[in-house]
Amino acid sequence: MAGITLVEGMKALEAGFQRARELDIIVAVSVVDARGDLIASARMDGSLWWWTETSRAKAFASVTYGGMKSGDLIDRSNNPVSQALVHMHQGRMALQQGAVPLFRGAVLFGAIGAAGGSGAEDEDVSAMAVQSIS
Amino acid sequence: MAGITLVEGMKALEAGFQRARELDIIVAVSVVDARGDLIASARMDGSLWWWTETSRAKAFASVTYGGMKSGDLIDRSNNPVSQALVHMHQGRMALQQGAVPLFRGAVLFGAIGAAGGSGAEDEDVSAMAVQSIS
Amino acid sequence: MAGITLVEGMKALEAGFQRARELDIIVAVSVVDARGDLIASARMDGSLWWWTETSRAKAFASVTYGGMKSGDLIDRSNNPVSQALVHMHQGRMALQQGAVPLFRGAVLFGAIGAAGGSGAEDEDVSAMAVQSIS
Amino acid sequence: MAGITLVEGMKALEAGFQRARELDIIVAVSVVDARGDLIASARMDGSLWWWTETSRAKAFASVTYGGMKSGDLIDRSNNPVSQALVHMHQGRMALQQGAVPLFRGAVLFGAIGAAGGSGAEDEDVSAMAVQSIS
Repeated sequence: MAGITLVEGMKALEAGFQRARELDIIVAVSVVDARGDLIASARMDGSLWWWTETSRAKAFASVTYGGMKSGDLIDRSNNPVSQALVHMHQGRMALQQGAVPLFRGAVLFGAIGAAGGSGAEDEDVSAMAVQSIS
Repeated sequence: MAGITLVEGMKALEAGFQRARELDIIVAVSVVDARGDLIASARMDGSLWWWTETSRAKAFASVTYGGMKSGDLIDRSNNPVSQALVHMHQGRMALQQGAVPLFRGAVLFGAIGAAGGSGAEDEDVSAMAVQSIS
Repeated sequence: MAGITLVEGMKALEAGFQRARELDIIVAVSVVDARGDLIASARMDGSLWWWTETSRAKAFASVTYGGMKSGDLIDRSNNPVSQALVHMHQGRMALQQGAVPLFRGAVLFGAIGAAGGSGAEDEDVSAMAVQSIS
Repeated sequence: MAGITLVEGMKALEAGFQRARELDIIVAVSVVDARGDLIASARMDGSLWWWTETSRAKAFASVTYGGMKSGDLIDRSNNPVSQALVHMHQGRMALQQGAVPLFRGAVLFGAIGAAGGSGAEDEDVSAMAVQSIS
């Protein structure tokens, strides 16, 4: 199956960082494939060290639930199954706003997550990153 | 980069224990650097065995969130991102009152956390420890 | 403290991928700071999903041991202390050839690791990535 | 049961650091009780961030095996039971030279571990720390 390419992943990171600069925020952005594995990730100067981790954890949540915005998963965060998944992945999944799935037609290709701004800002960054390669 | 020195770390522990004696409580105190790594930790006679762990976990939370009192982070403790971070660190982060950051100018140097008293008492101990080396 | 910037991190990734193309291999490359935290990571099309993880794990080993080539750490991989560190980091450290530290003067700024080729090829990729921002 | 007191723990740390200065090395030193739980730990200026962890992990090994020098446990480090214990404790046990048990009469009171020098140097530091409170 074709997936998100390296060129697309890097382009998406740049689009996300560009959007963050427009919003005057500092973020990390991560791109994962449909399985939740990392394609590309980076953090802007001034980021806290763990923002790469949480941007990725949001993107992981998005694809793990079949391609939902991670912000639409918050209500499930106290669900025993989601908590089990968080445990299984040693904390590397976060059902928190900031990630947007990437579909091509009906096919889920992956997701992009951001961390560092408010939840709404992070989602805005990720949406622009997704749009740049849609 | 200059950080909290060993001499300062030991002085801070002693200042914290002195404050605990004044409050007639028993505590453990931990000093971490700006990344959350341990500089110094000890527990008073009569402490429960795990108070060193939780004093450190509070200090870790303080620096992880950029230098906040851990007591100001309690509202975030059910947040999926903070829960993810707790799991990533195998429980070694606690968003609970008792740790105070150490800034010099605008630069975060680390944090000091205490455990064993009430949240307010622990924070009092940590504040005196921070003050002793500020 | 100044560290590796986002611009440098992205430039280093590109230099690494360019070198991999010259060697006709497929790799993932990761850039970490002096504490071992991720600055940037990506994998080429055709990579196995976990190469981002192991490229990062090699770079983590490099800085954890004070800035050594990870290939010079292989003899320590059965050492009980290094094994303890691998466990502490849930497998996210690998004492295997493929990562090169980045010093500026005597100061360790971080390390770059690669995975996907032979150990020697991975180290070659990382060395070119480091050189691109030295 | 009486154990190692806070005053003794702090005295032992100082004795260990004093010995390290005589040896012209930089170390972290940790004091644990007979159960392996932390009483006191600190690292000298210039230590790598993880030396507190591994000094403690050696001391944990010492008491876990009933009060042996951790250097006498190296042969067991590939033993499935010791490896299981390392896993159980998430890497927080290291069967490597550098820790010395503290007995009073026939009773094990705890152990002191050091990390940062060679194995022999670390054991020397710990032995002096133990002696200071024996």
